Amino acid sequence: MKWTALLSVAAAVVGSFLAFTQHASGHTDEKVPPNYEVQIPAGYRDWKLISVAHEAGNLNDIRAILGNDEAIKAYREEKFPFPDGTIIARLAWKYVPSEENNKVFGSEQSFVAGSPTNVQFMVKDSRRYSATGGWGFAQFTNGKPLNEAEPKPCFSCHEPAKARDFIFTHYAP
Amino acid sequence: MKWTALLSVAAAVVGSFLAFTQHASGHTDEKVPPNYEVQIPAGYRDWKLISVAHEAGNLNDIRAILGNDEAIKAYREEKFPFPDGTIIARLAWKYVPSEENNKVFGSEQSFVAGSPTNVQFMVKDSRRYSATGGWGFAQFTNGKPLNEAEPKPCFSCHEPAKARDFIFTHYAP
Repeated sequence: MKWTALLSVAAAVVGSFLAFTQHASGHTDEKVPPNYEVQIPAGYRDWKLISVAHEAGNLNDIRAILGNDEAIKAYREEKFPFPDGTIIARLAWKYVPSEENNKVFGSEQSFVAGSPTNVQFMVKDSRRYSATGGWGFAQFTNGKPLNEAEPKPCFSCHEPAKARDFIFTHYAP
Repeated sequence: MKWTALLSVAAAVVGSFLAFTQHASGHTDEKVPPNYEVQIPAGYRDWKLISVAHEAGNLNDIRAILGNDEAIKAYREEKFPFPDGTIIARLAWKYVPSEENNKVFGSEQSFVAGSPTNVQFMVKDSRRYSATGGWGFAQFTNGKPLNEAEPKPCFSCHEPAKARDFIFTHYAP
């Protein structure tokens, strides 16, 4: 990696961060209901891995939970509650068997990520989202927000994890 | 993020890269058989996500496939074969049900990452590993290499994926 490439990366990181903070700290756009204000954070697909999971049943997905630098730092240092600025992204894909892999293993055992289902974000801002444990919630399918999902229902499911700052996912070492 | 923090990250990235290239381009340590020379690359746990998978059966794990910058660039630009310098990491953890999540979903549907099982790496160096498709292979459990695993058996399982440069994993968007 050359320094020029590195500086590009650095610039992208700073840009993403500024883009986010501008949004998060800006005045509420009157056209956007505050409940739906969480946007897709720039560069989230590049974030570090927190853990992975599989939801069977109706969801039938396989998922990865990624975190921005604040999230990863808090997880690794086990410093909870998460600081303001933390964003956690939950990506999910259809849970599909891999015939190609099964042939190699000689057994029907391999399941991989198919097409994406939706992406969810939790954004920590203890003042702005004080009514929902300090977290703003959002879900996007093909880049479009799920406007029907008010933060309250998202939050009510996360309430049992209050002792871990409303986050279920444990860091996978 | 402050510039000082960013520069620390940049320094770490460069440091990791130099550490790897020093190893990869250095003379073979005579005490280490060439077949077992692939080391754990510095900073691999911070790499970007390629995809996720679940292997049932005897493996019974849930896994994440991460890539260094060369790997991610090739995947995203769909430029194969992968360039020399590419490293792909396969992390795996025990596949365990999450009682906590199941309570929230109201259904026995949630499986998460338990304790780590092992980590595998594929390192692309088309000259050094010309006998095995240009890839060096390694597996580590608790940081210790699986010396019994010669690259040939790893490679023989990967041969069916020759059309995709011996890599089974597709990039999960």
